[in-house]
Amino acid sequence: MDRPTLYIANKNYSSWSFRPWMALTGAGVDFEEVLIPFDYPGGNPDIKAISPTGRVPLLQHGALKIWESLAIIEYVAELYPDAGLLPRDRAERALARSVSMEMLSSFRALRSACPMNIRRPKGRIALSDGVDADINRIETIWRDLLQQSGGPFLFGAFSGVDAMFAPVVNRFDIYDLVSQNDTLAYMETMKAHPAWRKWEEAARAEPWIVPEDEV
Amino acid sequence: MDRPTLYIANKNYSSWSFRPWMALTGAGVDFEEVLIPFDYPGGNPDIKAISPTGRVPLLQHGALKIWESLAIIEYVAELYPDAGLLPRDRAERALARSVSMEMLSSFRALRSACPMNIRRPKGRIALSDGVDADINRIETIWRDLLQQSGGPFLFGAFSGVDAMFAPVVNRFDIYDLVSQNDTLAYMETMKAHPAWRKWEEAARAEPWIVPEDEV
Ligand SMILES: N[C@@H](CCC(=O)N[C@@H](CS)C(=O)NCC(=O)O)C(=O)O
Ligand SMILES: N[C@@H](CCC(=O)N[C@@H](CS)C(=O)NCC(=O)O)C(=O)O
Repeated sequence: MDRPTLYIANKNYSSWSFRPWMALTGAGVDFEEVLIPFDYPGGNPDIKAISPTGRVPLLQHGALKIWESLAIIEYVAELYPDAGLLPRDRAERALARSVSMEMLSSFRALRSACPMNIRRPKGRIALSDGVDADINRIETIWRDLLQQSGGPFLFGAFSGVDAMFAPVVNRFDIYDLVSQNDTLAYMETMKAHPAWRKWEEAARAEPWIVPEDEV
Repeated sequence: MDRPTLYIANKNYSSWSFRPWMALTGAGVDFEEVLIPFDYPGGNPDIKAISPTGRVPLLQHGALKIWESLAIIEYVAELYPDAGLLPRDRAERALARSVSMEMLSSFRALRSACPMNIRRPKGRIALSDGVDADINRIETIWRDLLQQSGGPFLFGAFSGVDAMFAPVVNRFDIYDLVSQNDTLAYMETMKAHPAWRKWEEAARAEPWIVPEDEV
């Protein structure tokens, strides 16, 4: 079958697009990329035309459409079992899915108060208790995984789990949310990854401004 | 290794507990069950003591702890590949994960306006537009899958995807939210499943009332 096409939105703002894009790029998967900017009031009709949820990311492979960031990563991990997107050990894989799905289902306070914004200069904002609780929980997840694996990524080598947390790395960074050394070291590892740098460069070059995401 | 232990909360109210419980029971998996009621203001300390997220469901298998309803289903599907928890075909499996993760990450309006409540008598409540949009999207998901598979479950035979939508079946039923024939037929199929009936009977026998979930 042809190489798959990943539909994404603005690299500067679309946190859910960043996840599978970083996973696929970091794993060396060959894919085509289509960017549909979401700078339309009421949602971009081009996103609605291709995606059953009206949201991106979406991976199209032949006639098959796959949505939800983590479902895309799981599918590509099945296509390329040697790409390292999921841990090989069953217990580690279960843990990888627990934390990836916790990211998918949770941390609403952090996600809504602190939008991903790749090119934003570093600077603090006022935070609610809910955001603090989210930050603490994520730092605990990272610390436990880095201690178990020895780092530098959450499961040792780069995997889909790091990709699931990539937008949080940006949020911790630009809103200056954390100060623990192990958290900061992990963030530096992520920001030095070639896939991160490629995404960042493209995000900085984008012309679009989304006012709601500028906080 | 010993059989796993599934920690859950109140059968009448805990929608996330219902999902893996129904998946494991429906697939004939042998597991132990520990119910920790969450009728404590500020959260039950016994849940916090066993679960890294302070939430249930949680599956303990030997030293391994797995949280997030769908991560539990994925783990058990790996342990028992013949139990039918995930479709065998790769494309169907990708679709199963897309819709299961959409359930995990989405439908907040429906979930917060219409709490699962197994023993509640049928009766309507006022709804916001967001709830209507969630209902429509879920009916579309079900209709598309039932048409593709031929039913009576979403992927033909009972699978983990049905389990992920089980609490929605209860919500559609008790708040009288739907009227399409194919939706209603699928709900009858689910409510007649032996695992559903077993859970329902136990929920009806529970003594606890959670006022916030009585709407
Ligand atoms: N749970 C979904 C979330 C997808 C999502 O919310 N995508 C946003 C962009 S980050 C979107 O497409 N919004 C539609 C729009 O703004 O038009 C996933 O993991 O893929
Ligand atoms: N995304 C999680 C959600 C888990 C969840 O929210 N669980 C609720 C019960 S349904 C809980 O344990 N709340 C803690 C409490 O009320 O003390 C999953 O899929 O397992």
